[in-house]
Amino acid sequence: MEKVRIGIVGVGNMGSNHSRYLTAGEVPDGELVAIADINPDRIDWAKETLGEKVQCFGTAEDMFNSGAIDAAIIATPHYDHPPLAIKAMNQGIHVLIEKPAGVYTKQVREMNAVADKSDCVFGLMFNQRTLATHQKMRDLVASGDLGEVQRTNYIITDWFRSQSYYDSGGWRATWSGEGGGVLMNQCPHNLDLWQWICGKPNRVRAFIGFGKFHDIEVDDSVTAYVEYPNGGTGVFITTTGEAPGTNRLEVAGDNGKVVLENGNITFWRTRGSVSKFNKEYKGGFGSPEVWKCDIPASGGEGHKGITKNWCDAIRNGNDLLAPGVEGIHGLEIANAMLLSAWTDDWVDLPISDDLYHAELQKRIDSSTMVKEDTGTVLNVAGTH
Amino acid sequence: MEKVRIGIVGVGNMGSNHSRYLTAGEVPDGELVAIADINPDRIDWAKETLGEKVQCFGTAEDMFNSGAIDAAIIATPHYDHPPLAIKAMNQGIHVLIEKPAGVYTKQVREMNAVADKSDCVFGLMFNQRTLATHQKMRDLVASGDLGEVQRTNYIITDWFRSQSYYDSGGWRATWSGEGGGVLMNQCPHNLDLWQWICGKPNRVRAFIGFGKFHDIEVDDSVTAYVEYPNGGTGVFITTTGEAPGTNRLEVAGDNGKVVLENGNITFWRTRGSVSKFNKEYKGGFGSPEVWKCDIPASGGEGHKGITKNWCDAIRNGNDLLAPGVEGIHGLEIANAMLLSAWTDDWVDLPISDDLYHAELQKRIDSSTMVKEDTGTVLNVAGTH
Repeated sequence: MEKVRIGIVGVGNMGSNHSRYLTAGEVPDGELVAIADINPDRIDWAKETLGEKVQCFGTAEDMFNSGAIDAAIIATPHYDHPPLAIKAMNQGIHVLIEKPAGVYTKQVREMNAVADKSDCVFGLMFNQRTLATHQKMRDLVASGDLGEVQRTNYIITDWFRSQSYYDSGGWRATWSGEGGGVLMNQCPHNLDLWQWICGKPNRVRAFIGFGKFHDIEVDDSVTAYVEYPNGGTGVFITTTGEAPGTNRLEVAGDNGKVVLENGNITFWRTRGSVSKFNKEYKGGFGSPEVWKCDIPASGGEGHKGITKNWCDAIRNGNDLLAPGVEGIHGLEIANAMLLSAWTDDWVDLPISDDLYHAELQKRIDSSTMVKEDTGTVLNVAGTH
Repeated sequence: MEKVRIGIVGVGNMGSNHSRYLTAGEVPDGELVAIADINPDRIDWAKETLGEKVQCFGTAEDMFNSGAIDAAIIATPHYDHPPLAIKAMNQGIHVLIEKPAGVYTKQVREMNAVADKSDCVFGLMFNQRTLATHQKMRDLVASGDLGEVQRTNYIITDWFRSQSYYDSGGWRATWSGEGGGVLMNQCPHNLDLWQWICGKPNRVRAFIGFGKFHDIEVDDSVTAYVEYPNGGTGVFITTTGEAPGTNRLEVAGDNGKVVLENGNITFWRTRGSVSKFNKEYKGGFGSPEVWKCDIPASGGEGHKGITKNWCDAIRNGNDLLAPGVEGIHGLEIANAMLLSAWTDDWVDLPISDDLYHAELQKRIDSSTMVKEDTGTVLNVAGTH
């Protein structure tokens, strides 16, 4: 294969961002050859901006059928990620989807089943996995340096959004249009990183404010308690109602604790295992010796890095940093949190895909939210 | 009144600490004239250490009846704080009790009722209220500088205790002897500060590990979610199983957020109200301007400061920094957390005193914990 011939479905905020670095030649293994958008204004924008070499299609299907592309980046609103990815892969087109993988696990599990049977390279735009800080956090846990994880705490409340943000699109922050709020739109990265670094919980109890800070019907304030298979515990807190908010991930393990905040990683490393000290120390009061260690980690290519990695995987068969089938993990945690809040009860993982879908549909059916309708499902203006 | 004539009930770790600064003359308005302890070894210690001016009694009652004291510091194990405080106040003796106020709200409410009817000055050893950092945190909230509180997060996991600590006393970390674990022994200060600074929640949902990190029957790992009357939310996390652990209090309000960690207060102050910006800003993406402010606060007299304040209140009628009747607030939160975990359900505040007492009694009755019995209820060695 020469360069991977890429088409983008949806050139709103994110799709147009991908088009920019691709047309600038910043992804050596790939080239942008087509876009598809159902919004004529975006087609006009693409024709003006991307040059004559990039074909424009009015629908994703027309682009998939054209034979012009080897691979598609799907940057539409959330609900459409799985059906479009399935269509593409069924035609042998490699796929990179924007986050989240989908809105509910049922549709994502179907997408993953198609991917499993397909030879297509299926990636997910978890661009934050490219950051050295996140990779290092994962490394500190996976390598055993931190010891067995006992407690995680992720405060990710620096997602402030004003009411005008929510008013900017008819589909935005509605059950039918977006399928959720802060968990579905802002937090897919954080939920993915949390499970990528610390592992996946097996039990969730969440407390959620719906339209607490904004005139919306979906979640804009979340506190969730989780338990892990090893008996460890965790807390995840997010909101779009705070400013400036906090972005702080703390992980306590048997060899101390590590904190990622403000782009810096600090590892308070106990000289020996905490559990060993606990058992063997005979002095009553007293605690393990601790070394405060500044852990080096900086840089990361972001979106472009994921696209480069995906093209490299297509051309050279190398591993994906963010396989598409892993998108279900963070989504399942988000679904479990919403289900826990709706039922005011514990939710075990794996969740019931059907129950979640039914509960979501109830909220779509009973929605009384009146928002200006932008008229299309695939209007991606403002998506990110 | 000349100097306040003070007697100490229980000269274990804490009681002997109080005796040291009192005999050193560091509390101008008070003098140590007596101690009471049922442990003959501690009487011997007192005779050797405190000098002939300090009378020694084998029971608190003998000391109360002696006419030798105006005021008593009660530094016994937790269960005995309320009954001893009640006895003292009923004899017109001013009282300062160690934390916690008691083990269950029912006994503390009885103590408070006696205090309310009495002319005695009734204080509580909430020595951390003397610290300038805590007073400043309270001031930032109470003054309105932080704006209405939306979210609190207190991670106070730097209470590491080894198994040998728990093994050091037969009463320690048992339902019958101590009435609880990390919530009852280590956290009374933190629970008090949390409600003193941020206000009292009206609803609690807690998740507790009993003997999770140690061979004990009581709580040594706690995650609690709370809601406040204004709709705000909070999280409180503690354990004695982590090292080095974390001591970090974050409070988010309508004017930004304030964080107390490592003895430093940082106030990320939004230039205007967050809720006002949320409503009035029309730009979609965008957030309030934030000023990072280092807030000055240092010093504080600790235990001695509380004792000085209590003696000043007795002699001069000035206000107590930590009135004894306020001890019920943090205790009620602790009781609510335990009750929530035991019932795996929400607990509303005010809690049912009788229900909590009954549930605690169940655990005392069904305890199978076998520990070496030190033979006395009032053995205060190792108390703190």
